[in-house]
Amino acid sequence: MKYVIIGGVAGGMSAATRLRRLNEEAEIIVVERGPYVSFANCGLPYFIGGVIQERSKLLVQTAEKLYQRFRLDVRTESEATHIDREQKKVTITHHGKTYEENYDALILSTGAHPMRPPIKGIDQADHLFTLRDVPDAEHIVQYLQQHQVDRAVIIGAGFIGMEMAENLAERGLKVTIIEREHQVLPPLDPEMAASVEAELKERGIEVLKGKTVTGFEEKGAVLVMDDGRRKESDLTLLSVGIVPESSLAEQAGLALGIRRSISVNDQLQTSDPNIYAIGDAIEVAQTISGKAAVIPLASPANRQGRMVADILSGLNRHYKGTLGTSIVKIFDTSAAVTGLSEKMLQRYQIPYEALHTSPPDHASYYPGSSQMTLKLLFDPEVGKLLGAQAVGKKGIDKTIDVLATAIHGQMTVNDLTELELAYAPPFNSAKAPVNLIGYASENLLEDKVQHVQWNEVDQLVKQGAMLIDVRTEQEYENGTIQGAVNIPLDNLRQRVREIPKNRNLIVTCQVGLRGYLASRILAQKGYKVKNLDGGYKLYKSVFPEKVKE
Amino acid sequence: MKYVIIGGVAGGMSAATRLRRLNEEAEIIVVERGPYVSFANCGLPYFIGGVIQERSKLLVQTAEKLYQRFRLDVRTESEATHIDREQKKVTITHHGKTYEENYDALILSTGAHPMRPPIKGIDQADHLFTLRDVPDAEHIVQYLQQHQVDRAVIIGAGFIGMEMAENLAERGLKVTIIEREHQVLPPLDPEMAASVEAELKERGIEVLKGKTVTGFEEKGAVLVMDDGRRKESDLTLLSVGIVPESSLAEQAGLALGIRRSISVNDQLQTSDPNIYAIGDAIEVAQTISGKAAVIPLASPANRQGRMVADILSGLNRHYKGTLGTSIVKIFDTSAAVTGLSEKMLQRYQIPYEALHTSPPDHASYYPGSSQMTLKLLFDPEVGKLLGAQAVGKKGIDKTIDVLATAIHGQMTVNDLTELELAYAPPFNSAKAPVNLIGYASENLLEDKVQHVQWNEVDQLVKQGAMLIDVRTEQEYENGTIQGAVNIPLDNLRQRVREIPKNRNLIVTCQVGLRGYLASRILAQKGYKVKNLDGGYKLYKSVFPEKVKE
Ligand SMILES: Cc1cc2nc3c(=O)[nH]c(=O)nc-3n(C[C@H](O)[C@H](O)[C@H](O)COP(=O)(O)OP(=O)(O)OC[C@H]3O[C@@H](n4cnc5c(N)ncnc54)[C@H](O)[C@@H]3O)c2cc1C
Ligand SMILES: Cc1cc2nc3c(=O)[nH]c(=O)nc-3n(C[C@H](O)[C@H](O)[C@H](O)COP(=O)(O)OP(=O)(O)OC[C@H]3O[C@@H](n4cnc5c(N)ncnc54)[C@H](O)[C@@H]3O)c2cc1C
Ligand SMILES: CC(C)(COP(=O)(O)OP(=O)(O)OC[C@H]1O[C@@H](n2cnc3c(N)ncnc32)[C@H](O)[C@@H]1OP(=O)(O)O)[C@@H](O)C(=O)NCCC(=O)NCCS
Ligand SMILES: CC(C)(COP(=O)(O)OP(=O)(O)OC[C@H]1O[C@@H](n2cnc3c(N)ncnc32)[C@H](O)[C@@H]1OP(=O)(O)O)[C@@H](O)C(=O)NCCC(=O)NCCS
Repeated sequence: MKYVIIGGVAGGMSAATRLRRLNEEAEIIVVERGPYVSFANCGLPYFIGGVIQERSKLLVQTAEKLYQRFRLDVRTESEATHIDREQKKVTITHHGKTYEENYDALILSTGAHPMRPPIKGIDQADHLFTLRDVPDAEHIVQYLQQHQVDRAVIIGAGFIGMEMAENLAERGLKVTIIEREHQVLPPLDPEMAASVEAELKERGIEVLKGKTVTGFEEKGAVLVMDDGRRKESDLTLLSVGIVPESSLAEQAGLALGIRRSISVNDQLQTSDPNIYAIGDAIEVAQTISGKAAVIPLASPANRQGRMVADILSGLNRHYKGTLGTSIVKIFDTSAAVTGLSEKMLQRYQIPYEALHTSPPDHASYYPGSSQMTLKLLFDPEVGKLLGAQAVGKKGIDKTIDVLATAIHGQMTVNDLTELELAYAPPFNSAKAPVNLIGYASENLLEDKVQHVQWNEVDQLVKQGAMLIDVRTEQEYENGTIQGAVNIPLDNLRQRVREIPKNRNLIVTCQVGLRGYLASRILAQKGYKVKNLDGGYKLYKSVFPEKVKE
Repeated sequence: MKYVIIGGVAGGMSAATRLRRLNEEAEIIVVERGPYVSFANCGLPYFIGGVIQERSKLLVQTAEKLYQRFRLDVRTESEATHIDREQKKVTITHHGKTYEENYDALILSTGAHPMRPPIKGIDQADHLFTLRDVPDAEHIVQYLQQHQVDRAVIIGAGFIGMEMAENLAERGLKVTIIEREHQVLPPLDPEMAASVEAELKERGIEVLKGKTVTGFEEKGAVLVMDDGRRKESDLTLLSVGIVPESSLAEQAGLALGIRRSISVNDQLQTSDPNIYAIGDAIEVAQTISGKAAVIPLASPANRQGRMVADILSGLNRHYKGTLGTSIVKIFDTSAAVTGLSEKMLQRYQIPYEALHTSPPDHASYYPGSSQMTLKLLFDPEVGKLLGAQAVGKKGIDKTIDVLATAIHGQMTVNDLTELELAYAPPFNSAKAPVNLIGYASENLLEDKVQHVQWNEVDQLVKQGAMLIDVRTEQEYENGTIQGAVNIPLDNLRQRVREIPKNRNLIVTCQVGLRGYLASRILAQKGYKVKNLDGGYKLYKSVFPEKVKE
């Protein structure tokens, strides 16, 4: 068998090494356009920031080592320019020379390239960068070394934008982020992204939301926004998303999916049975919605790489879809997401219930614990998990990984109440965050409580609901939601006669727990009561300007 | 309804608060023998070590606050001394006064007490302590403050013994641990416990394994062991396990289970339909084996507490068993386990396959990563997960929590290959440790490789197998297993003719990965080859004296 693999990084090289392990005799050629293979794209922001100091650390493997160990025929600086499907041949160009290579099976792991919108003046902007590979990172580092760079502008507040904001700020630059949406980190829901934005601002990073860059002036030294505002920049990073690298596939007439991605079946096979495709370049089914998606992440690319080798070797494998679990560190804060967001659920019109909690990452009586914000999305009838998000300083990766595993297992919120996680005071609470959010969700499902969301409460109060803040007098004095009256939880039973029976009630506390307790008391006394999910803390993090402090 | 709950800590108070939330009108009495309720037993070692400085931090709730918030009638320093099942009455003694309280339903969450074997001289030993509750901890702290204490001896190297060893050492004491078994941390398998022992020794803690204390002399100032050896001690902690606190239940004629635990059905009901029992005092079914077990952990106790309240309130709940997930911090090392250990699988004669890996907790190109040792146990036919253990400095809690969740979902090793966990360089690798051990296990199941264990290799070599160390010459020079010849992996294909075809081969490397690669090459060339699981690293950690360095 002769395999040709186009693209020698996450997906492609994972396929190549696995192919060799399964077949010592096969001929395996890896064609890579760039100077390096098997490099850690995900480490590039940290290389630029100086956290990873040697470039060699980014090179997980080299062509030489891959030959020694795996007898892979790795050809760098070699671009595949044409596929002849009829003849099963690829045309390859290396340093100006062109030749053909035939194949029994061809694997495309061509990745993606940064999106480059047709903004006025973009081609004249001479310190505008994108970041995808090692040469890109080297260009940025070189520019930083050779020029006086004080102010950086990052266009796009996604994962790469966030990481670059941190790393450039750590190098001492004054950083501005410009984001078209009205929140940072668009994969998250806005109320979850709010505390990420707070962390950025605390670190001196300027965040401009709801703004689009419409022009580059003075060779890119000045950025113009849709509201006319201008921003000076010594270095600009464009990180507004990726475009699947499918030109070769398109040329060859392979079926394409959404966003110019390559269509594959559940055996990662394109519309040509001899051509397979994996990684950022392909369309996948999002596991929960079943909808077509492009999910450009390293884990799925690696997994698909191994799987395509298995399939080509005759093992019975089916790709079941991509969940979209991801995480980013922003200074001391981490933000992670798995499954569908509330925004996506709305877009797909999938019914859901949402719940927010703020548990400590570990027993608060043991030093160093830190409160996270956790959001769970689940089916309102059967409780099946649909998605989760977490933001905080500690335990974010663990919490989301447990929930991603639960989602993979098609679990419900009831399962979360039963998970038995490792508890000792330095690591967790006896009721783990995941258990607690399971309990609280189960209460919703079983009608023990009703709740309202951070973006509903104002309207309901306007419509006449009575808002009761059940925190202590002291907490209430320090700040509350406009219109709230204060009846501390521990006095509620004594003072219940002060509350009119005929009004709709909303109770609120700091994070939702005491509000829940108050709801239970009031509901059993015959009141129509709803708890403000996430409490004052979540409300304030989204509407800092609205609260009365 | 009138509920009486005996025992006001993890299980009992969780039941009480949940009962109130479900029923505002019920009468709920909590009877607690000790001076405190709702305290954090799990924090006691850290209180003794000074990590938790104020006693008040250990008191999660107080009787007063529980009345204010939950209208619980909490009676401390009140011992339940008798149950009259006929009359549905409990006899309670408080400060010498005795009275009765009737109940509709009674909940026993009486916990457990430290085991106190009948060792010669034990009753005369005057600085011998056990640790279960706040007064116990206060006694130890007082003793440390009022006496010149230089040398401490801990009898029993379980979780509490480990935590106390750390905390007493951190206070500057010279600590010795005496353990009857031939390993520390008996819930783990011995090869996993080996690196915990190494950490203890590195911290200056003396570890005496395979030794039993048979006598206390000079009022406990001298301990005598079964081998005649004597050890001086200024403070001795007895932490050799617990005995379920079931005297009240036994007296009342309730059915008992193993180890004097209280028998309950899957609705946590004892043999008397009006009496329920939860927590450390009960017998549970271990989830995977279905076997009767006593699993004294806080998470299950809390969960059972909430569940019994649900059951009493008419909600449809069934207790499905306890998995036994637990974790302990020992200085910078953590050790965790979930499901069944290899020892337990052998005892129950459940067929299994075991696999060890040593992945970094996060991408090794990002600073600060640390290698863990991970062990997976799974069904050798269908790959169903049976148990897991992890030891290392970082990511242990996360890895075990993900695996505990996977076990809850009855997943197989194939599921592990498909888990999509949160990856960015500071948090994980693109192939997470859990994915990798899934891959390696799948290879075993699908017969891509065969392996031998650390405790089998010597015997096989004796029987004539050829042992090939495929690491580099340099690594080989620095130390290898007795009898190994060196053929570096990257030269294997060239030098394969040196290897006789008729011999059984065992290949080994540092952790098992290169050995696996060598196995694949050799197997495809027609050799009978097995890979040493866990490699030289694991072998050496168990047999430091056997390796040739
Ligand atoms: C800065 C940055 C940070 C990231 N951080 C994370 C993270 O933290 N977590 C995460 O999960 N993911 C992260 N990612 C995404 C991750 O790197 C990708 O999902 C992954 O690399 C995709 O693998 P792939 O094989 O599909 O594509 P790539 O790894 O991009 O490899 C594709 C290769 O194909 C080559 N190629 C394309 N066309 C041709 C051709 N015609 N001929 C020859 N060669 C060709 C390209 O040169 C390229 O090297 C990050 C990406 C970047 C850029
Ligand atoms: C030092 C230490 C560290 C621990 N660390 C961990 C850890 O890190 N992780 C973990 O999961 N678990 C840990 N545990 C175990 C955990 O504390 C227990 O599993 C949990 O407390 C069990 O809850 P329970 O309600 O069954 O019993 P307990 O919490 O022990 O409560 C039982 C209560 O019942 C009272 N009682 C008994 N009989 C009577 C009677 N007749 N009348 C009135 N009152 C009575 C007792 O005084 C006691 O207060 C630790 C335990 C100890 C002692
Ligand atoms: C590194 C790379 C070349 C893949 O190499 P690889 O050999 O497949 O991967 P690893 O070194 O992780 O080894 C995994 C293999 O070792 C096996 N293995 C790992 N530890 C083992 C152990 N202790 N015992 C036995 N086998 C083990 C696994 O089962 C797996 O083999 P399999 O796929 O045949 O089942 C490819 O992933 C790559 O180029 N990565 C860098 C680029 C990248 O991922 N970028 C995006 C993220 S920054
Ligand atoms: C603390 C203790 C009294 C139990 O109190 P509790 O009120 O049941 O527990 P919590 O304070 O964790 O609150 C959990 C409740 O709040 C709800 N909740 C938590 N966060 C919420 C939020 N943000 N929004 C809505 N509800 C929330 C949960 O659903 C749960 O209610 P439910 O059981 O009715 O579903 C008991 O566990 C105890 O005594 N613990 C200390 C002893 C101990 O555990 N020792 C061993 C370990 S050291």
